Amino acid sequence: MKSAINPTRNEDYSEWYLQVIKAADLAEHSCVRGSMVIKPWGYGIWENIQRKLDRDFKGVGVENAYFPLFIPLSFFEKEAEHVEGFAKECAVVTHHRLKKNDDGKLVPASPLEEPLVVRPTSEMIIGDHFAKWISSYRDLPLKINQWSNVVRWEMRTRLFLRTTEILWQEGHTAHATGKEADEMARTILDLYVYFLEDKLAIPVIKGVKSESEKFPGAEKTYTFEAMMQDRKALQAGTSHYLGENFAKSCNILFQDETGEKKYASTTSWGVTTRLIGGCIMVHSDDDGLVLPPKVATAQIVIMPILHDDEQKAAVIEYCEKIKKELSKLSYDNDPIRAIIDLRNIRGGEKNWGWIKKGAPLRVEIGPKDIEKDQVVLMRRTKSPKDKLFLSRKEFIEKAGDFLGESHNKLFERAKKFRDDNLKFIDNEEEFYKFFTPKNAKNPEIHAGFACVNFSMDQNIEEKIKNDLNVTLRCIPFDFQEKGKCIFSGKENSQKVIFAKAY
Amino acid sequence: MKSAINPTRNEDYSEWYLQVIKAADLAEHSCVRGSMVIKPWGYGIWENIQRKLDRDFKGVGVENAYFPLFIPLSFFEKEAEHVEGFAKECAVVTHHRLKKNDDGKLVPASPLEEPLVVRPTSEMIIGDHFAKWISSYRDLPLKINQWSNVVRWEMRTRLFLRTTEILWQEGHTAHATGKEADEMARTILDLYVYFLEDKLAIPVIKGVKSESEKFPGAEKTYTFEAMMQDRKALQAGTSHYLGENFAKSCNILFQDETGEKKYASTTSWGVTTRLIGGCIMVHSDDDGLVLPPKVATAQIVIMPILHDDEQKAAVIEYCEKIKKELSKLSYDNDPIRAIIDLRNIRGGEKNWGWIKKGAPLRVEIGPKDIEKDQVVLMRRTKSPKDKLFLSRKEFIEKAGDFLGESHNKLFERAKKFRDDNLKFIDNEEEFYKFFTPKNAKNPEIHAGFACVNFSMDQNIEEKIKNDLNVTLRCIPFDFQEKGKCIFSGKENSQKVIFAKAY
Repeated sequence: MKSAINPTRNEDYSEWYLQVIKAADLAEHSCVRGSMVIKPWGYGIWENIQRKLDRDFKGVGVENAYFPLFIPLSFFEKEAEHVEGFAKECAVVTHHRLKKNDDGKLVPASPLEEPLVVRPTSEMIIGDHFAKWISSYRDLPLKINQWSNVVRWEMRTRLFLRTTEILWQEGHTAHATGKEADEMARTILDLYVYFLEDKLAIPVIKGVKSESEKFPGAEKTYTFEAMMQDRKALQAGTSHYLGENFAKSCNILFQDETGEKKYASTTSWGVTTRLIGGCIMVHSDDDGLVLPPKVATAQIVIMPILHDDEQKAAVIEYCEKIKKELSKLSYDNDPIRAIIDLRNIRGGEKNWGWIKKGAPLRVEIGPKDIEKDQVVLMRRTKSPKDKLFLSRKEFIEKAGDFLGESHNKLFERAKKFRDDNLKFIDNEEEFYKFFTPKNAKNPEIHAGFACVNFSMDQNIEEKIKNDLNVTLRCIPFDFQEKGKCIFSGKENSQKVIFAKAY
Repeated sequence: MKSAINPTRNEDYSEWYLQVIKAADLAEHSCVRGSMVIKPWGYGIWENIQRKLDRDFKGVGVENAYFPLFIPLSFFEKEAEHVEGFAKECAVVTHHRLKKNDDGKLVPASPLEEPLVVRPTSEMIIGDHFAKWISSYRDLPLKINQWSNVVRWEMRTRLFLRTTEILWQEGHTAHATGKEADEMARTILDLYVYFLEDKLAIPVIKGVKSESEKFPGAEKTYTFEAMMQDRKALQAGTSHYLGENFAKSCNILFQDETGEKKYASTTSWGVTTRLIGGCIMVHSDDDGLVLPPKVATAQIVIMPILHDDEQKAAVIEYCEKIKKELSKLSYDNDPIRAIIDLRNIRGGEKNWGWIKKGAPLRVEIGPKDIEKDQVVLMRRTKSPKDKLFLSRKEFIEKAGDFLGESHNKLFERAKKFRDDNLKFIDNEEEFYKFFTPKNAKNPEIHAGFACVNFSMDQNIEEKIKNDLNVTLRCIPFDFQEKGKCIFSGKENSQKVIFAKAY
């Protein structure tokens, strides 16, 4: 059977990804190198992610604020590892004002005294203000988040996964002790993991990054890694325990109960619109986008059949009534989001349009259905031919259940896929074989995650990266059982996960 | 009586404004020239403005999207008036990457092929995408909004009113006819005016800008002007009918029903965090901030009296219960926002802290109140000595009414002040006298708005600006009665409003 997306996942995974985005009208490239435009059907997902995550942050006492886009260049020099990590990715404002040169061409006019970096992340500027806000233990803990854009100059970009400009949230907290800060970083890790699994239906493996993969300047980077359908890993977000490193470079000091001056301990953590890329790659199929119901831009698309001019008004009125009834119901603590597609086009075209756009539930309503007071329900997680004929009353009553059923199906499917492709490997030869492409026709379909005992030797980690283009994704909290390192033979080595990654 | 804010409005209005912001902990300057940090109590106001406005936009069929921060310099050259208007305010990215120079100092490393302007507004980049999205009359109208940051390099900055980086929303729509686009710009004007009056309790005068004050490249700029307590005008936002000007420079073409290719007509419109500056200047008093209840970060602050250690737990529990009951109620279509101030400080300090922060309602609860199952209510629009003793039940029942009463009081007070200081003037001499400072002690307290018949002669407008530092704020929709221009004597001149402005 022909699929709606061409090529399919098996034929060309990278191109399939781009075609899914295009067919669903989620986003497109802009003329500015590496930047993208997020279109309404894509931005709606981000709005839902924002609203739900924001509620969770507020639940653990985090407040929102806003800090400047520009950071003085000199601020970056304060933390050596940090500047080292971000120097290659900075975009720099050097001038203000435009003027016409002698050829009549517009050029930058007035050089700035000090160049300004467009924030790639805000530790240094937020730290500068934390230092002003904190003077006593009474001011701690301080828990701040901002929703903003950051810029990281990327050479190879990919819609939603790696772009020059990124929409994200960045949380920054300060605490009296390192223990408390580390606990905060872990609390946020758990919050994120719950969010991915419960809201995006994406199962993840949580753990800690190795020295070579941690955030520049952090003591510890907690991560959660998801498996895409090409079996590559996606780092879905991170939560950093920064120790006193940034407090020292930004001078964040407080007086404790005894009057002693101490450095605060800080954390930072963030997720980006990359989460949307993760949703696309985990759930979608060869017919296009499949959206997890809790964050879908619209959860239910009502498709009136409008070709009978006489019945048209009655059909629309009936649809409006259903939409109104649905909007009074709530699913996952938000009103159910239903829309009506009033376009006067063929029913098949309408139906396939919404399949490709990944709407969780589709409801078709024609003049005959009104007579019977019924609707025809189709679900994105089932075949297009699988139609349920339900009385209006039953459909309204069960709408939330149908959404929940879809969510569960997506999560279970993704979890089974991840579990099936997570291999415990106990020798180096098998490890190398595991990561050597077997599918000559589509080398983009990879082997999966390898869970092995590893001594954490950075030279070996580097060699594996060079040999196989495989990186150490995390030291997982689960699956821990000490043993012999499969590369060095060193005893008592912990389990780690290696994979190819986005 | 000594006031909480020093100086008072009458002593030094500009400084009073800054001290209100400081005492309420709304925002502060950052080390980056002209940029500010919006702190949680200030950012909460913006979150409420965003949520409510966004709902209104969606109500008129506008969808959110996101476009890039950077705009290629060459895009600006496409619309001559537009580039002329913004050239002085542009910040320009010319490099990416940082490197250490020979002195070990960080410097920008790689020059870009084409400099990028940090968006001061997005007509040109959004227009570039509209041109791709629109091909047929079926694609129209297209109604898009984005919530974002923009940068306008300002020489003299002022917290919330004029900053280098601004948080705002910008709406952009495209229509088949100029008439329809103009109607859209008017619809949004009405939506904004309703928002200011109904949500922010700020009365405004709506009208059209003169040629010299309109948006660079627009056909018509609709505006709404509010009067601050120093009697200066604040342009609270604008809605532009752009005709075919931007469609021509961005090539936004569509095929109409007959197959003919035509240029679309477009609009753009925006409001910024300047609205918060407006709220501060219209409503606050010599004791600090007064927040309009519908957008206040917290609407009700519950202040437990905690000095009795034995009763402490019971008092807190009672407060939690009230907070929970309030959160189940709704005011202006949102759950009531109540917070508990658990700090163990003196009751007077707590109370005055929240007066300065402008919380609409304050509720004090001590062990004796629990016994009586009552609360002590204080309102920001009344004297701190005006205390209402209410049973818990009555307070909960009437909480929404008390908020509504505060809103009405603020609106009526601001409207009376505006009306009292709007003068209809029929000769030039009186006009000049009106705008000549009489208050030598505080020349910042101005005369108000002058409504006069004016021939719209741009030379006269320029002369008035030079002589008095007074600008033509708008041609108001109300108060229209044609007559003799008070400057030129030209008959049949329309009424306009002149004022000093922020």
